[in-house]
Amino acid sequence: MLVGSIEAGGTKFVCAVGDEEYNIVDSHHFPTTDPDTTLSKVIDYFQQFKISALGVASFGPLDLDKKSANFGSIMASPKLDWRNIPIYQILKDRLHIPIFLTTDVNGSAYGEYIIGRLRGQKLNSLVYYTIGTGVGAGIIYDGKFLGDLGHPEMGHVFVKRHPNDKGFEGICHYHHDCLEGLVSGPTFEVRLGKRGEDVSLNDPVWDVMAYYMAQALMQSTMTLRPSKFVLGGSVVNDTFLKKVRQQYKLLINDYISLPSLEDYIVRPLVENNGSATIGNFALAIKQSQQE
Amino acid sequence: MLVGSIEAGGTKFVCAVGDEEYNIVDSHHFPTTDPDTTLSKVIDYFQQFKISALGVASFGPLDLDKKSANFGSIMASPKLDWRNIPIYQILKDRLHIPIFLTTDVNGSAYGEYIIGRLRGQKLNSLVYYTIGTGVGAGIIYDGKFLGDLGHPEMGHVFVKRHPNDKGFEGICHYHHDCLEGLVSGPTFEVRLGKRGEDVSLNDPVWDVMAYYMAQALMQSTMTLRPSKFVLGGSVVNDTFLKKVRQQYKLLINDYISLPSLEDYIVRPLVENNGSATIGNFALAIKQSQQE
Repeated sequence: MLVGSIEAGGTKFVCAVGDEEYNIVDSHHFPTTDPDTTLSKVIDYFQQFKISALGVASFGPLDLDKKSANFGSIMASPKLDWRNIPIYQILKDRLHIPIFLTTDVNGSAYGEYIIGRLRGQKLNSLVYYTIGTGVGAGIIYDGKFLGDLGHPEMGHVFVKRHPNDKGFEGICHYHHDCLEGLVSGPTFEVRLGKRGEDVSLNDPVWDVMAYYMAQALMQSTMTLRPSKFVLGGSVVNDTFLKKVRQQYKLLINDYISLPSLEDYIVRPLVENNGSATIGNFALAIKQSQQE
Repeated sequence: MLVGSIEAGGTKFVCAVGDEEYNIVDSHHFPTTDPDTTLSKVIDYFQQFKISALGVASFGPLDLDKKSANFGSIMASPKLDWRNIPIYQILKDRLHIPIFLTTDVNGSAYGEYIIGRLRGQKLNSLVYYTIGTGVGAGIIYDGKFLGDLGHPEMGHVFVKRHPNDKGFEGICHYHHDCLEGLVSGPTFEVRLGKRGEDVSLNDPVWDVMAYYMAQALMQSTMTLRPSKFVLGGSVVNDTFLKKVRQQYKLLINDYISLPSLEDYIVRPLVENNGSATIGNFALAIKQSQQE
């Protein structure tokens, strides 16, 4: 059996075909232009293969409520062309196969959960944060995605401000200094006047950002007590991760007992941002078993 | 069938006997002294009735991991006498009936969930915050309590500080200005030199506290997107709740669509802090069906 994966992102649609053991058989990506052009190319691509099911991890926000009239649509996206595009239904009408649609970061979370379990990790739950152009998070709990009235939006929470960062207003258009407004990739340009890849690992900005991310992880910890945290996205590097763990330990201050943080707060197991592809394959297989 | 309820609190153990429709048949409370004396009285009380199962909502922290050697024990409690007391096992060994043990606030959360559903509310999930001597929260999601490596401790999260409250250091022994350190009942004495019941509803402290609680609700919203929030505990009054709703709306700033806040962020349906008793009865009934 072959299955398909789409990672629908703001700049490109990464498409892949895989087997039941999550090996990538073929892959291709298409620039994200207007919905008609982009989705036509994607559909043409998958029609070359006999895929049995498709997993789609898409930018959003998405309406994922199966009882909603808008189920499977992209909602109030900053990408105006894509607003109200019923991505699930368009793909379903053309491909006629079981499709599982979720958020981009949920796809990555699921990939890390599946691979972690395959490697023998005891994971009943997992929280995946991506820190890149924006900040998002996905939560797996007992094998399912959390989110009742909608999917998580954990980039948009407030945190206690760092004493050395009080002058920075934050860049979130909705909330100014929410987590995304303080630690997403574009903050480097605003705080320091240079791109993230040009910022030295010795720059004190990493301490400030680690302080904020550690608070976000502490919020998730105190809420869910998850089995594991995975931090992905272009902003994350080993130096930053180490600082996040240090700040997290300081902030929690032994209030609860914690696993060894080196194994608890980690980078993705799947390299090169490939978690979502594996997650989508696994979700496609699961969906094909249910339909 | 009769079932029992214990709300094990820091100052008293509230015991009740109820029927399958959650009517209270009898109730009694005992002061919380040393574990032997307190639990003996509680056991003697329940032995007067032919109860088939017991729900226990206890102060903690509790070890609720069924695979743990300490399952059912009170762990690092500030009440030193009660540390490492295996409350579940002591009750089980003497009463020989199915027992469900959970945190105090989980008991209240479950009561509100059960009564809400009986009244026809569509609740797939519910978050209950109690704001009193401390701040705690319980989460029901798909009929179960959330919490993987342990139960929630959502009083101990950080929030963005209010500009008019920067001089206040907070009173949490572990975290200083975490949520509990900023909005629990004993903060009135430290901030204003008087007890909460003597603080005017016009005092600006309510705006400061509402700003912090609204952030806590926003964190939970962005994580879980729950069906409903219930705010209980001695600090909560209608004026405060109204301010929490206003701040919450301002902070979220239409980033996600929300239900009508008057029905979304509410005080308990069960009056006089009775939610936990109902919740415990319901959990006892559920447990008796499973054993």
